[in-house]
Amino acid sequence: MSPSEPPDSEAFHFVRRIRIDASGSRPEEAAVACEEPLEIQVGATSLAVVMRTPGRDRELALGFLLTEGIISGPEQLISLHAHARTADPEAEDHVVRAVLAPGVAHDLDALRRNLYASSSCGICGKATIESALAHAPPLDDPARFEAAFFAGLPDPVRARQAVFQRTGGLHAAALFDPVGELLVVREDVGRHNALDKVVGWAVEQRLVPLAGHVLLVSGRISYELVQKALAARVPVVAAISAPTSLAVALAEKSGIALVAFLRGGRFGLYGDRGRVVG
Amino acid sequence: MSPSEPPDSEAFHFVRRIRIDASGSRPEEAAVACEEPLEIQVGATSLAVVMRTPGRDRELALGFLLTEGIISGPEQLISLHAHARTADPEAEDHVVRAVLAPGVAHDLDALRRNLYASSSCGICGKATIESALAHAPPLDDPARFEAAFFAGLPDPVRARQAVFQRTGGLHAAALFDPVGELLVVREDVGRHNALDKVVGWAVEQRLVPLAGHVLLVSGRISYELVQKALAARVPVVAAISAPTSLAVALAEKSGIALVAFLRGGRFGLYGDRGRVVG
Repeated sequence: MSPSEPPDSEAFHFVRRIRIDASGSRPEEAAVACEEPLEIQVGATSLAVVMRTPGRDRELALGFLLTEGIISGPEQLISLHAHARTADPEAEDHVVRAVLAPGVAHDLDALRRNLYASSSCGICGKATIESALAHAPPLDDPARFEAAFFAGLPDPVRARQAVFQRTGGLHAAALFDPVGELLVVREDVGRHNALDKVVGWAVEQRLVPLAGHVLLVSGRISYELVQKALAARVPVVAAISAPTSLAVALAEKSGIALVAFLRGGRFGLYGDRGRVVG
Repeated sequence: MSPSEPPDSEAFHFVRRIRIDASGSRPEEAAVACEEPLEIQVGATSLAVVMRTPGRDRELALGFLLTEGIISGPEQLISLHAHARTADPEAEDHVVRAVLAPGVAHDLDALRRNLYASSSCGICGKATIESALAHAPPLDDPARFEAAFFAGLPDPVRARQAVFQRTGGLHAAALFDPVGELLVVREDVGRHNALDKVVGWAVEQRLVPLAGHVLLVSGRISYELVQKALAARVPVVAAISAPTSLAVALAEKSGIALVAFLRGGRFGLYGDRGRVVG
């Protein structure tokens, strides 16, 4: 983590509220999850502004650049620096600026069109499954998992959702290695940001492409999460809640298994259903 | 609802999955919430593409135009039509096209910059609280509510979340009138889309500005939801889960009360805390 990056303790702060229950009402201070804009620049070009939970900004930007197809690995970056936009330490807006290696082909205008969405999806300009697959072909990863592999995944992640426990307001994403070891947990107000932070961490660890690994996300599996998993080459996305129609369709065509409604060892298996055996 | 708009029954469809539990595994068909792109055009200009649950597309577009500040009421629209982009009935992508009344000032480039975000927020280009308040000034609404008003809100909404019950995959937004009567419930894969559909319905009913009304949303209260509520002039946003830091900050400055963690008559009151008495 670079010195300019705020620590995770900036992921929440305290506000005044009134607590109301059967015994009456009383004022108190309560922790809320921080939500602030971060601008991601490529060279001098503003690529996107994401509303994110501060902390791990470099990981977030690195993961975003990879999962949105701007870079395929860290060797395509000359530098990636997080810094405040202004000299004012009170300024809320922050910037991460990437400098790409010479010769890295990219089409920022096309990406910006893709980002032109106002939805929780966030990727989908004209996005269709075909365009997702044009950017990242279907997986060629033989990984298979026993059904029993998944039962134990949620508990250790929940135990490490430090900010969620204080605020009730954050999504989480986690990465497990092929033998089920929990590698990293990241939290954010945006589900896709949490996933981008995990992928950014994995890029820094030189683990991408993530063949044989499993992503676990809190909440639901939207199309965008599967598209990002495909870019990072993860064969399985697991979640506590439901998948959407487009997430299932993309998973089926790209060779990704979706392990949804994962609770107490039970789950529903969608997408590339041959990846889970037993 | 216009004839070209798909009915709510298109809000989900069935996919194959494998159900895995202690008794073993078996293939079955399961309902998933539909997630498909919708393009919102103003004249010949593409304004945004949102990933939404089909159905109520006109409401969604109408609410989006109002909550993003393009129009202040239905009188500023000459027409708003939903139609498939192509003659192909199998085509997934749909379009809603708005034609504004002559003389309606708008700055689509500025809005498009604002929409340039890849987050669940979706509004925030350079958005700050100040820019939100520049678009929509703080409320001047004397509405006050008894604490007991809120205890009964969630149950009737949950009972009407038809698609969520089938898929587990949708957010909901609901509107209550000043005496607590439930007016409308809308569902969507995107939390902000569900809110936009409710606001679009209210615009059609000539209920906007929504002085004295209460919005209830499933899940968390992000900055974007408060910004949209402010545009629709709703003095209270209630939710089952947590608010974010920026949502609280905007609510405090704009005169909106946030009733969060609303469960069994208990809640935490944030933002304009003077709106709830007793």
